[in-house]
Amino acid sequence: MTEQTQQTEQAQQTRQLPPDVIAQLKALDPAVSPELAQATWALLTPFHEKAGYTAPKIDRDLRYGDDPRHRLDVHTAGNGQAGAPVFVFVHGGGFVRGDKHVPGTPQYDLVGAWAVRHGWVGVTMTYRLAPEHTWPSGAQDVAAAVRWLRAHIAGYGGDPDKIVVAGNSAGAMHVASFAAGQGAAGPADPVGPGGIAGAALLSGIYEIGAPRPGEPEHAYYGPNPGPEVSPLPGLLRTTVPLLFSVAERDPGLFQEAAARLVGKWLDRHGTVPDLVWVEGHNHMSTIGSLTVDEAALGVPLARFVERVTGWPR
Amino acid sequence: MTEQTQQTEQAQQTRQLPPDVIAQLKALDPAVSPELAQATWALLTPFHEKAGYTAPKIDRDLRYGDDPRHRLDVHTAGNGQAGAPVFVFVHGGGFVRGDKHVPGTPQYDLVGAWAVRHGWVGVTMTYRLAPEHTWPSGAQDVAAAVRWLRAHIAGYGGDPDKIVVAGNSAGAMHVASFAAGQGAAGPADPVGPGGIAGAALLSGIYEIGAPRPGEPEHAYYGPNPGPEVSPLPGLLRTTVPLLFSVAERDPGLFQEAAARLVGKWLDRHGTVPDLVWVEGHNHMSTIGSLTVDEAALGVPLARFVERVTGWPR
Repeated sequence: MTEQTQQTEQAQQTRQLPPDVIAQLKALDPAVSPELAQATWALLTPFHEKAGYTAPKIDRDLRYGDDPRHRLDVHTAGNGQAGAPVFVFVHGGGFVRGDKHVPGTPQYDLVGAWAVRHGWVGVTMTYRLAPEHTWPSGAQDVAAAVRWLRAHIAGYGGDPDKIVVAGNSAGAMHVASFAAGQGAAGPADPVGPGGIAGAALLSGIYEIGAPRPGEPEHAYYGPNPGPEVSPLPGLLRTTVPLLFSVAERDPGLFQEAAARLVGKWLDRHGTVPDLVWVEGHNHMSTIGSLTVDEAALGVPLARFVERVTGWPR
Repeated sequence: MTEQTQQTEQAQQTRQLPPDVIAQLKALDPAVSPELAQATWALLTPFHEKAGYTAPKIDRDLRYGDDPRHRLDVHTAGNGQAGAPVFVFVHGGGFVRGDKHVPGTPQYDLVGAWAVRHGWVGVTMTYRLAPEHTWPSGAQDVAAAVRWLRAHIAGYGGDPDKIVVAGNSAGAMHVASFAAGQGAAGPADPVGPGGIAGAALLSGIYEIGAPRPGEPEHAYYGPNPGPEVSPLPGLLRTTVPLLFSVAERDPGLFQEAAARLVGKWLDRHGTVPDLVWVEGHNHMSTIGSLTVDEAALGVPLARFVERVTGWPR
């Protein structure tokens, strides 16, 4: 019974959000809106406050480029470790808003704390925004951040050859562009996609149509972008290991993007891609499930990071 | 650091297969064959022996029908609990072989032990085989077992309204047929699909073509089955909650089946189905990952069972 009790407790620990909270999340209108964000974080924040969302040490606003938005935070255990995987998070915000750090909230220090809990280094980064900066500025900023991390992260205990970059929503699309080679300075750029160990694309869209004014893609890709902006062909070609996720309560566009990805991936590779269906969560709560609802995304995402970085050895 | 250490250990506990074992699994020829089964279980069995694969109490060979193959084993903690979810496993074997219990091995007592570790009742069942018994005998046998469980499982601590039926390979196809309504005695049959709380379909095929002699489907469905044998339309219609899985190393037919499922599900529901991509595993090792590699399948599968049964309250 001791082993059984222990394992039952372990099972509980990996899915900590009470069913009524999941039910409240699922009852929200899934359309991406400020109201959804507010309601989602109102539900999740108490659990992050209880779990703790700040790593023991956070070095904030390190500059990885010249723009005021070229800043990243490094989250560590502060214990002098070395050679750890580096988990980088690129926030969403419809290409026109968002930040790595909203003071007084778990957004997105929680991601850094989650990485540190797994024994890794966490990085949260901010990037240039539309409409001032358009495609492929996001991919270029991810590339610049990776370039900076490859040069400097060993000083924080990270292994520059174990960088995994994750993004959600618009952030997923910037990471996808980077993984597809759209942010590289050139074919020989060592911080092109070959500079990372893996990429995790959470609730992204990988084929860009003709956005209308008011659609989030309009400001970043313009009204009538060519096929070269769509990362999907590059994602099908890249050798960078990829994890995708779609939330149970993601809106239709993201569901369609995930399903199309599966079909195209089968056509190309003869297999289904590593796609995580994030049970009970919505477009905003997927990233917020880390730590407080590990079974939703954290467990497969951590497994992916450990697989592609060979950690722990 | 205490919390961090604890959580790192927790992370380790949920993915216990060493990377070299996963690498050896991934190096196996994925074609479904006796060699794959032998090599897979040779790799997994030591871990199950270490973890323990027998529940505290196993009531074997309870008869749920007249045929010698109408037998099931009930796995419990033997602690007098009541009202627990009931997790039923239907084995594979190409429609012509297989058993719920191979003495001296973890097949498939491990599934019962896994259910009991989660606080549920586990059931492993055997069913009639082709070529003597053809479609829809498998679905009828699942229905008969569910009928028996609804009548008797309370006596073992299970809740007859919390039955989740899982199958893999041919077993998945029998469970799919049942969930699609192919095994019901009639429209008013209370142990039709409405008699279960959910179904988990692991590495199945849901559209049946024209099997050739030698293909596993030939003996069960015949050489030229009609569209009525394919469970996919019924799966798209059913209100029974469904979880699907496909293994990273499943052969092409199963990859195609999963991808087609995703496309058809989107067409019907506008969403992606709950599909688990079982990282690192093959057609045989998916079910063997339970307990010893929980992050692969066990975590999302347990979350599914808890969601559809409302457990724990």
